[in-house]
Amino acid sequence: MQYCDILLHAAHIVTQDEQGRILDNASLAIADGLVVGIGPRADMDALWQAARVMDMGNSLVLPGLINAHTHAAMTLLRGLADDMPLMDWLGKSIFPVEKQLTADLTRLGSLLGYAEMLRTGTTACVDMYLFAEASLEAAHTAGLRCLGGEAVFDFPGAACAGPEQALEKTLALAEKYRSHPRLRVAVNPHSVYTCSPQTLGACRDLAHSQNLPLHIHLAETPQETALCLSAHAMRPTALCHSLGLLDLPCTLAHVVDVSAEELDLLARTKAVVAHNPSSNMKLASGTAPVPAMLERGLPVGLGTDGPASNNRLNIFVEMDRCALLHKLAEKNPTVLPAEQTLHMATTGGAAAMHDMRLGRLAAGRPADCVALNLDAPGLQPLYSPVSHIVYAATGMETRMTMVGGEVLYEDGRFSRFDYPALCAEARAARDFVLRAAGRKPA
Amino acid sequence: MQYCDILLHAAHIVTQDEQGRILDNASLAIADGLVVGIGPRADMDALWQAARVMDMGNSLVLPGLINAHTHAAMTLLRGLADDMPLMDWLGKSIFPVEKQLTADLTRLGSLLGYAEMLRTGTTACVDMYLFAEASLEAAHTAGLRCLGGEAVFDFPGAACAGPEQALEKTLALAEKYRSHPRLRVAVNPHSVYTCSPQTLGACRDLAHSQNLPLHIHLAETPQETALCLSAHAMRPTALCHSLGLLDLPCTLAHVVDVSAEELDLLARTKAVVAHNPSSNMKLASGTAPVPAMLERGLPVGLGTDGPASNNRLNIFVEMDRCALLHKLAEKNPTVLPAEQTLHMATTGGAAAMHDMRLGRLAAGRPADCVALNLDAPGLQPLYSPVSHIVYAATGMETRMTMVGGEVLYEDGRFSRFDYPALCAEARAARDFVLRAAGRKPA
Repeated sequence: MQYCDILLHAAHIVTQDEQGRILDNASLAIADGLVVGIGPRADMDALWQAARVMDMGNSLVLPGLINAHTHAAMTLLRGLADDMPLMDWLGKSIFPVEKQLTADLTRLGSLLGYAEMLRTGTTACVDMYLFAEASLEAAHTAGLRCLGGEAVFDFPGAACAGPEQALEKTLALAEKYRSHPRLRVAVNPHSVYTCSPQTLGACRDLAHSQNLPLHIHLAETPQETALCLSAHAMRPTALCHSLGLLDLPCTLAHVVDVSAEELDLLARTKAVVAHNPSSNMKLASGTAPVPAMLERGLPVGLGTDGPASNNRLNIFVEMDRCALLHKLAEKNPTVLPAEQTLHMATTGGAAAMHDMRLGRLAAGRPADCVALNLDAPGLQPLYSPVSHIVYAATGMETRMTMVGGEVLYEDGRFSRFDYPALCAEARAARDFVLRAAGRKPA
Repeated sequence: MQYCDILLHAAHIVTQDEQGRILDNASLAIADGLVVGIGPRADMDALWQAARVMDMGNSLVLPGLINAHTHAAMTLLRGLADDMPLMDWLGKSIFPVEKQLTADLTRLGSLLGYAEMLRTGTTACVDMYLFAEASLEAAHTAGLRCLGGEAVFDFPGAACAGPEQALEKTLALAEKYRSHPRLRVAVNPHSVYTCSPQTLGACRDLAHSQNLPLHIHLAETPQETALCLSAHAMRPTALCHSLGLLDLPCTLAHVVDVSAEELDLLARTKAVVAHNPSSNMKLASGTAPVPAMLERGLPVGLGTDGPASNNRLNIFVEMDRCALLHKLAEKNPTVLPAEQTLHMATTGGAAAMHDMRLGRLAAGRPADCVALNLDAPGLQPLYSPVSHIVYAATGMETRMTMVGGEVLYEDGRFSRFDYPALCAEARAARDFVLRAAGRKPA
């Protein structure tokens, strides 16, 4: 008999382990935040003595999903403006609010976003925003894993006077969170159209010297490519390559407007792509060549982008949408089968976090997992757990979300914060946002 | 003081009425299954004496959504096979099971599908399947509105020996349900590739003589067009037009492979289109020219198609997907704004049901409505109710679903049937389905 903290039983466990095992009537043993055992329930009951037994009943347990690219704090702006050309949307609604943003509002919006992530089965995310310290504090409060950091722009914003200050903040955050068990800092140049080559070079140098990953929006639209060609006589991918950004572990958000040659190049680097199907569709940015990326072995995670351009932080929605979008784009219903899509949301997301311990349930890996209630209408009967995860679940069937062996959400309750109080704060912040957007508060 | 059955209060009511009114802190008065009053809560409290007061608190009430095209009984086959070419999927997985289908299994699958619809805010649907009487009985049990009827094929199936028997069944069902308050029968020729012109003509004659709408799959894929051209030297739309089908009130499912001239023609007929974005994407059928349809004033509703090719019966998912798909296809983020998309799922659906009383909350119209819990993570804060309905809600925020003034679902419970017993039946049917598909039961 061995001792563990938690023995979790479920009707089905989708492990995403190297063998791709799916276990029926099975159990996870968890100790010190890690999975220490996984197997048939009868065997596990005989092997393990647990301080706490969690019987999830008719549930499907899977690795916590990973959001490979988001701006969680924008939850505070969700639904403020939709159905607009990108530049109108930014200029008339988003930028005016962001100009008046504060650390407190960023903390509030981020925590609200993280609540939605935990509620819909996401246990880790790659985030980029202003006032990143407040976002990271919110992630610390919520308990989920986050690779975050201050967005770097050439121009002044509410949080920073310019790129130097953003990089100073990044360094300070990296030092602050160096030993944090769930938070890690990335260097976050916003994009090639908001950062000069000098700024991008300074980002590269900081990432290199501090051993930090880099996270940037790249090749999101043909307009970005045109701007980059006109300013630098190079396409965005080539520019980043020439500056050495791709020699670092880096997460490239979007990567829509790329050639086959650029994909070949990316596949030879340390880059990971964060694919954001909803955002790319809603903003009419285009279709990222995801099947071509996967064919080349380029790792791809799934992101929501910010909730002002999506408007959800729900990776279940992104999985289904990703699989369907690429079947349509390639005119081939066999493209991006459910198994491959689930890998994007788990192991692909782990790559985007630059933390390959994540994304699988196996001994020695962090106990980040999610339980879906199979009794929900829409999930009965069950033939293939992976099909239901990708094509049938809405994410709201999540009944339990755990990070590092700690239950953060279960049956309507968040364990680490007062959700009703958070909603009340969000309602109170609404009038500020409306005024900042130049509208009359309700 | 006037008397009503129910006075329902909510934080917000999206009426979809002719003026497009959205009321805050408002109430619906309901009597004899109809909305009899709608307005600010204080006024309504003063005007109406109700037998029952339903205070939905921080909820958003909207008209019940309408699923314009589905095969609800296929819920029993959901996730049995995905990611396959259409013909493999049909030939290897779907047809072998459908050959062994029974009325009891159809009733079970349909009721399970209707449970999911009620759970996710759908109050009416246009259904087509084998053993339609069993599906209509399930709709009667579930309580939602259904325009259903026996699918007509030229070849024999589990339910009918051929088209004559299917039409006899249609006539018998039409007589049986002639005075049913929520059920109506349509003539359902499956498609131009499974019905001869003779059969289509017999369908037209029955629909005409019995004053029934007609519901057919039309122009779903380029392959269908090629088959039709080869067999009849006409494209599918032209064939249906030449046979007089479009002179009847008819619901055309899919309408993907159509020319501008065909859209001009359809706009001059009594046809309504049922657009199925998820199904068209998953099966890689193509992109229906929905913006061009709407420009011509052709009514368009939103459907899920059957849950073996979607795999959800959730119109919230279809709304968001529809808006995003067409923004991407037209390379224009202003296409299909949230308001227009919500109209497809409400008044467009009413057109597909051939029942224009539905889809709006206004005095004299049926009290079919849905309450979304705005306290759900993902719906806070609120700037635009319509944006949240289309872009943020998953459908699972539905806390109450009402048809004709009767609460059919509320806070986890279905009022008309035993949902846990239904799930147990579905689990028991699973082995039959697996055996029928030539697989080993678990």
